[in-house]
Amino acid sequence: MKIKDIGEQGLLTILQRFCPQEIVGDDAAVIATKPDRSLVITTDMLVDGVHFSDRTTGPYYAGWRAAAANLSDLAAMGATPLAVTVALGVTGNTAVEWVEEFYRGMTACLQQDRAPIVGGDIVRSPVVTAAITAFGEVEGHRTIRRGNARSGWAIVATGFHGASRAGLELLLHSELGKKLGEVDRAALIRAHQKPNPRLDVLPVLWEILDAESKQISIAGMDSSDGLADAIVQICRASKVGARIERSRLPVPAALQSIVSPQTALNWTLYGGEDFELVLCLPPDLAEKLVQRLGNGSAIVGNITDRSDILLVDSTGIYAEEQLTISKGFQHFV
Amino acid sequence: MKIKDIGEQGLLTILQRFCPQEIVGDDAAVIATKPDRSLVITTDMLVDGVHFSDRTTGPYYAGWRAAAANLSDLAAMGATPLAVTVALGVTGNTAVEWVEEFYRGMTACLQQDRAPIVGGDIVRSPVVTAAITAFGEVEGHRTIRRGNARSGWAIVATGFHGASRAGLELLLHSELGKKLGEVDRAALIRAHQKPNPRLDVLPVLWEILDAESKQISIAGMDSSDGLADAIVQICRASKVGARIERSRLPVPAALQSIVSPQTALNWTLYGGEDFELVLCLPPDLAEKLVQRLGNGSAIVGNITDRSDILLVDSTGIYAEEQLTISKGFQHFV
Repeated sequence: MKIKDIGEQGLLTILQRFCPQEIVGDDAAVIATKPDRSLVITTDMLVDGVHFSDRTTGPYYAGWRAAAANLSDLAAMGATPLAVTVALGVTGNTAVEWVEEFYRGMTACLQQDRAPIVGGDIVRSPVVTAAITAFGEVEGHRTIRRGNARSGWAIVATGFHGASRAGLELLLHSELGKKLGEVDRAALIRAHQKPNPRLDVLPVLWEILDAESKQISIAGMDSSDGLADAIVQICRASKVGARIERSRLPVPAALQSIVSPQTALNWTLYGGEDFELVLCLPPDLAEKLVQRLGNGSAIVGNITDRSDILLVDSTGIYAEEQLTISKGFQHFV
Repeated sequence: MKIKDIGEQGLLTILQRFCPQEIVGDDAAVIATKPDRSLVITTDMLVDGVHFSDRTTGPYYAGWRAAAANLSDLAAMGATPLAVTVALGVTGNTAVEWVEEFYRGMTACLQQDRAPIVGGDIVRSPVVTAAITAFGEVEGHRTIRRGNARSGWAIVATGFHGASRAGLELLLHSELGKKLGEVDRAALIRAHQKPNPRLDVLPVLWEILDAESKQISIAGMDSSDGLADAIVQICRASKVGARIERSRLPVPAALQSIVSPQTALNWTLYGGEDFELVLCLPPDLAEKLVQRLGNGSAIVGNITDRSDILLVDSTGIYAEEQLTISKGFQHFV
């Protein structure tokens, strides 16, 4: 039996048997290291031609995005970054300049959140490969987990979704950009090339939560695999349903100029790689959070005690439909 | 300029500019997380055809060795393992059984030291690639560093050297094995396929050090790149010299049956991958350590205040010579 026969999910299921069950299943692993303080660890592997390509990304942006993806996983757990290690496989024919630009991009992104590269490995490989591991710390009661969502809570997206996908399309099909002003075009491309991990959300969130009389463990994950995927994963892990309001989805305005409303909605729900956070918390706190964050953040719906995840339209134009998990990029097919 | 033009060392020199200078240069990175307690992190990337091959290793042993190499780096810093993450790149045609065996080998090695796999990533790649990151903890004053060696201290090898290289040769040239008894042959092959990271040395070492009236920060690293390499690296980092006694080198007895004394000596000094520790500490403590460890451990020489590293023969048969860094496997050539 080969991996292409069982796919990424099939392989994951097999390999999770080798890991402690209480630890796997979130954006990052959590290890309690002292009373009410945990070490949070996340790792990502990126392969040339699979996860980046000089055609759309270039080494600086490949490095930036690799760092951003890892920091976003830490943010999704509520963790503050400590440091990063980088293992790099390069061919003899890889340009030194390529590797330097990759590191420049990584460190530029990491410096924003003061996360140094503290170690690594450099090896020979027939294909350029980077494996990044990021470590952070979180106070135990603040750990954000997928499985914490409760019926009645609001679902917050911390920013616009679909911009990264639109940026990718603009890079691949430059003619699309002619329909946009220079500022909008540059913003969408930047959303793809230089996404900002939302670690800045955390202090705002703690301030709002700390003002509460009772401790609340909120739910969430990042939207690296798409907004719809994040909502579905949270609902599955929390054994709840959700009701998403179509008109509240944070679709970037510029998308309307380049694609149909249906495509814009699809990119927002399934585009992926926006590296925003999707958080579930009591409605009054969610209101405060969205007010403080502004800039595309929105309450997109609420958690229900049903088992389905519905996309509804309160204006009555569109029929109710089930929200499904991303049918986007399938590995090993 | 391509990587093959500057080699691994050239690339390392360039990339270290992107890392905090006080952190790099040991077997693992050390981050102080609380008073007198540090997080120790090490990462290794392994590529099919470069670092392992089904011809000599097989997936179970490739997994074991990958885990052992990382635990050995933690041991070299004096750190107790906490956990491991694994990022894995596989092709669609990789056998599921191969991946399962790789994980079985890893977890078998990790379980010895109670280090769980807490997370990871699985991606598509044209070549099977594993990146392992191991985390451990060490009490600050116990951190073992390459740069701590002092003139007059003894140099301890915690076990035999050259066995792993001999095991590899036996796997590649089975006719060599005919000169050996079954037990010796199996032991050398096991040294190559299932090396034991020397975390067991640490409690013995702490017991000996704790019995001292003053705190001593000892020097050391692991011998994954060879015994000679470890001695040279420690001397360079500590800005000292060394005098190594030829007759005291821990050459496995079985090597004499299959190769010349000169080749046996070369394998012991330069063979690599024995994953023992090379430690520098005051002579009286070194004596106690070697007595407690037994089983191939030896005081191989002492640190001097000269700049050269000499291989001497007190019996007067061999001329004094300079010990040089491994001229073994060169990357990117």
